[in-house]
Amino acid sequence: MDHSFLSDDEAIPCAGLGRDLRRVGAHPDHWYPLAWSRELKAGKTLAVRFADKPIVLARPKDAARPVFALEDRCAHRQVPLSQGLVEGCAIRCGYHGWAYDQSGQCTDVPYLGKGKLPNGVRAYPVQEKEGLILVFPGDPALAATTPLPALGSVANPAYKTRRFGQIVGCHYTFMHENLMDMNHQFLHRKQMGQMRPRFLGQAQGEDWVEARYSFARTDGKQPWGEAAIFGQRRGTQAEFADKDVMTIRTEYPYQTLRIRTKDATPVMDLWIAYVPQDSEQRTNRTFGLLSIHKPKIPGILEAAWPLLILFTERIFKEDREIVEQEQAAHDMQGRDLNQEVFPVIRNLRALLMERGTPEDVPRAVSRAPSLERVVE
Amino acid sequence: MDHSFLSDDEAIPCAGLGRDLRRVGAHPDHWYPLAWSRELKAGKTLAVRFADKPIVLARPKDAARPVFALEDRCAHRQVPLSQGLVEGCAIRCGYHGWAYDQSGQCTDVPYLGKGKLPNGVRAYPVQEKEGLILVFPGDPALAATTPLPALGSVANPAYKTRRFGQIVGCHYTFMHENLMDMNHQFLHRKQMGQMRPRFLGQAQGEDWVEARYSFARTDGKQPWGEAAIFGQRRGTQAEFADKDVMTIRTEYPYQTLRIRTKDATPVMDLWIAYVPQDSEQRTNRTFGLLSIHKPKIPGILEAAWPLLILFTERIFKEDREIVEQEQAAHDMQGRDLNQEVFPVIRNLRALLMERGTPEDVPRAVSRAPSLERVVE
Amino acid sequence: MDHSFLSDDEAIPCAGLGRDLRRVGAHPDHWYPLAWSRELKAGKTLAVRFADKPIVLARPKDAARPVFALEDRCAHRQVPLSQGLVEGCAIRCGYHGWAYDQSGQCTDVPYLGKGKLPNGVRAYPVQEKEGLILVFPGDPALAATTPLPALGSVANPAYKTRRFGQIVGCHYTFMHENLMDMNHQFLHRKQMGQMRPRFLGQAQGEDWVEARYSFARTDGKQPWGEAAIFGQRRGTQAEFADKDVMTIRTEYPYQTLRIRTKDATPVMDLWIAYVPQDSEQRTNRTFGLLSIHKPKIPGILEAAWPLLILFTERIFKEDREIVEQEQAAHDMQGRDLNQEVFPVIRNLRALLMERGTPEDVPRAVSRAPSLERVVE
Repeated sequence: MDHSFLSDDEAIPCAGLGRDLRRVGAHPDHWYPLAWSRELKAGKTLAVRFADKPIVLARPKDAARPVFALEDRCAHRQVPLSQGLVEGCAIRCGYHGWAYDQSGQCTDVPYLGKGKLPNGVRAYPVQEKEGLILVFPGDPALAATTPLPALGSVANPAYKTRRFGQIVGCHYTFMHENLMDMNHQFLHRKQMGQMRPRFLGQAQGEDWVEARYSFARTDGKQPWGEAAIFGQRRGTQAEFADKDVMTIRTEYPYQTLRIRTKDATPVMDLWIAYVPQDSEQRTNRTFGLLSIHKPKIPGILEAAWPLLILFTERIFKEDREIVEQEQAAHDMQGRDLNQEVFPVIRNLRALLMERGTPEDVPRAVSRAPSLERVVE
Repeated sequence: MDHSFLSDDEAIPCAGLGRDLRRVGAHPDHWYPLAWSRELKAGKTLAVRFADKPIVLARPKDAARPVFALEDRCAHRQVPLSQGLVEGCAIRCGYHGWAYDQSGQCTDVPYLGKGKLPNGVRAYPVQEKEGLILVFPGDPALAATTPLPALGSVANPAYKTRRFGQIVGCHYTFMHENLMDMNHQFLHRKQMGQMRPRFLGQAQGEDWVEARYSFARTDGKQPWGEAAIFGQRRGTQAEFADKDVMTIRTEYPYQTLRIRTKDATPVMDLWIAYVPQDSEQRTNRTFGLLSIHKPKIPGILEAAWPLLILFTERIFKEDREIVEQEQAAHDMQGRDLNQEVFPVIRNLRALLMERGTPEDVPRAVSRAPSLERVVE
Repeated sequence: MDHSFLSDDEAIPCAGLGRDLRRVGAHPDHWYPLAWSRELKAGKTLAVRFADKPIVLARPKDAARPVFALEDRCAHRQVPLSQGLVEGCAIRCGYHGWAYDQSGQCTDVPYLGKGKLPNGVRAYPVQEKEGLILVFPGDPALAATTPLPALGSVANPAYKTRRFGQIVGCHYTFMHENLMDMNHQFLHRKQMGQMRPRFLGQAQGEDWVEARYSFARTDGKQPWGEAAIFGQRRGTQAEFADKDVMTIRTEYPYQTLRIRTKDATPVMDLWIAYVPQDSEQRTNRTFGLLSIHKPKIPGILEAAWPLLILFTERIFKEDREIVEQEQAAHDMQGRDLNQEVFPVIRNLRALLMERGTPEDVPRAVSRAPSLERVVE
């Protein structure tokens, strides 16, 4: 691989950028997917999370009325409203029966006069798009002027999309770094055979960083799952090498991965978001849209779909295990000791640091740092 | 429901009273049930708890000798004496064989001269009453002048009593508030049908607060378990409404619930105590005596007893789940953000605060407070 | 038992020696067994621990090349090298493929120029002896001048050796104290029958303390497992009494137990080491070599071996449970409240304090001390 991108001083390892990146919170002033539409039935509630914020989503029985989102704690006894009842465009707490409308205002306490109603709960802006329920957890005044994310090619009928996701036990920044550094192809050597990534270059803007790669197969055969994505089987190394370009971009706070052939024919579009699930942001829920460009011959992609699912699940499993070990190392070491030498990842880290919350996420439980590595 | 009890300024929500009620310890200068008599066999020990105090109960083989209670840690290596042997009116530690009499004095170290015996362990005053083993965990000098609690109607042959209890994962104060606020009937709507509580008034004294209610069934049929308690089935709403009066009283540190018909005929007496089980007092063990007045026709109550057990277990399960969620919210929020608007519950909270320990219970593990609700 | 060893002032209980012994770390400037040789296959890695240090052991495929040991964290992303690949005398990380030789130097980053290689990882001196892989976790400059431990009689063909061990949930110092205080024979009364230890005396040197005992059976029969160790069955108390001498020695950081008959005929040699497994050193892994002197009649020991295994496993189980309760008490009490009256154990504690790390082991999670025992 060409490594002329590294100037001498860039090669000096650096552990971090002053602040610990793993304590930088995901900035709340964006639209985050908090659930799949199919998870929230008519007339029901769903408990979801954004970082330290428990949120209840509610879908009125009347399909004409939109989903709404409230803080998932009754203002009275702080128990989850998600265990209450949906009544029209309101939720009634299941404990003492306090009710809140979609703006969070308390509209009824069964044993209290209407003129004396207590304070309500916080409401969150919500939008539903392409099977995702997106919530704006930050300053509600900014929601109207903040655009919803473009969701890859999910709306394009030339693509077939797999919706996937899971809870991953790590800070969301590990997810961005994992995907953008394609040298981690080595991790997937059993699934993909030996592939040598070739870094083609990087680019960046105010709120994004991207890396471009091509790949050469150095050993092993192309797996069937990969063939399903590319729409054809390429048997030999020579045919494969440098034919396709993969572009991975973090456009804060989302991430995309696109594959195009050398002549710019679309192959695959991935859109993905990582949503912190706990106060310390040490877990995230992944929402991914994997859109495969349909080949000219109809039916091939549908036939290969189960293989594609199996293949991607295996890849995701390896990625989940390794990023959870990165988090475990951070927990044990008490801070970020990564020695990142790859310039595009250093740029990505700087972007995540800059775009995240200005204040560190608080630690729920103090962990003793091991001082061993510092003094070396 | 009549809510004329609320004056305007009372309706202003208040989160607390300065101190965090969930860090106020149960005051140790009272008699607390730490076990059922049947749990402690002759010649055996039993490990129990009061807050941060592990306590071993021991019953001598000789039935004429009373149960005694010691600190459940050998003075030598701090291991539980409850794993040792009962020898007469003494316990011998199972590790190196140190022995302690019922006053806690060390009476034998097998490899040490009698003149050189080390310090012993703390002993606790104990009394056994109506199938409960009651211990005085506080200042032993006060035990003799502190009366044992009246245990409802358990000793009255006109009643049949169910003994029940369980470990509940919350601070004992949530238990008191749960029971006394009968507006939480809404929680039990599936078990009891829709009942509208009517607050009849409150009263209080130096160490007690009580609330009186009547109930009107607004929908659904009377469940069989409830009929078992009342000794008759009341089919229609009109018959039921306002016939019975329920009085719930916290007489520190115990709680009682009595039901009487309008003509003062006794229906049910519940006596209940909540005993902290850990240093942080975030769990409690409940000891309850549910005494049902026997109906005139013999055999009816016995026949209905299994229904009554099933019914009460379902109610307790719902209560346990909701108070554990109150505790979970407190753990996450780091303090008490309840917005209590019901005056009798505010009075109850003031009583629990005033009668509890003057010092806060220490936190074993620091938990980061979420600041979100404070700044709103 | 003779207790003339206790002068009056020695009998005064003392809780500790200023520092909390349970926060003194095992001194790293010694050879510690971190694995059994059989656990590490050719061409494979093995993840082990010494206190806060995760260590990867690697055995090259070429049997002529020795086992090597590195810090078990890739310098790049801090993930375990033990999940990587052994390539010759190097380990390649399974994530992005960075490689390290047996000195810990980074020798390859697949996507980086050779002149720009980043810092590597720490390497540890290793030696393999009698089926144990011993590592020197401290200052590597001291490894060459620090002798390997004599491993009891494992190399002596006159003995048959059982290798055993397990993870025990307590600080290593509890293990030393447990074994050396033979008054804890009382703990094993069900396995061994009632035995009365007789303390014969103690001795000590610069880095060791030892205690000598004989035993008299006061009740019960000799168990079969014990007979297997002694090579003959001694039916009656009179025969047994005072025939054998048991010597238990802590020679820092190891411990040995030897049994000889009165005429100095060898019976049994035990060598044992306790290796901290976590940053707080609240767990240890035990590596034990139990060598039984072969009786004159061949075959007897082999026949009795399963009984010996069963017998020793039962003893170890009782010991493990009690020392874990000592640790649990320390966790709850927040410090060492042992009231040790036995002079040899007090001397042992002083040795462990003096020879351990000068700095306290850091606490990962703060635990609230219970103040109850202090104020008494």
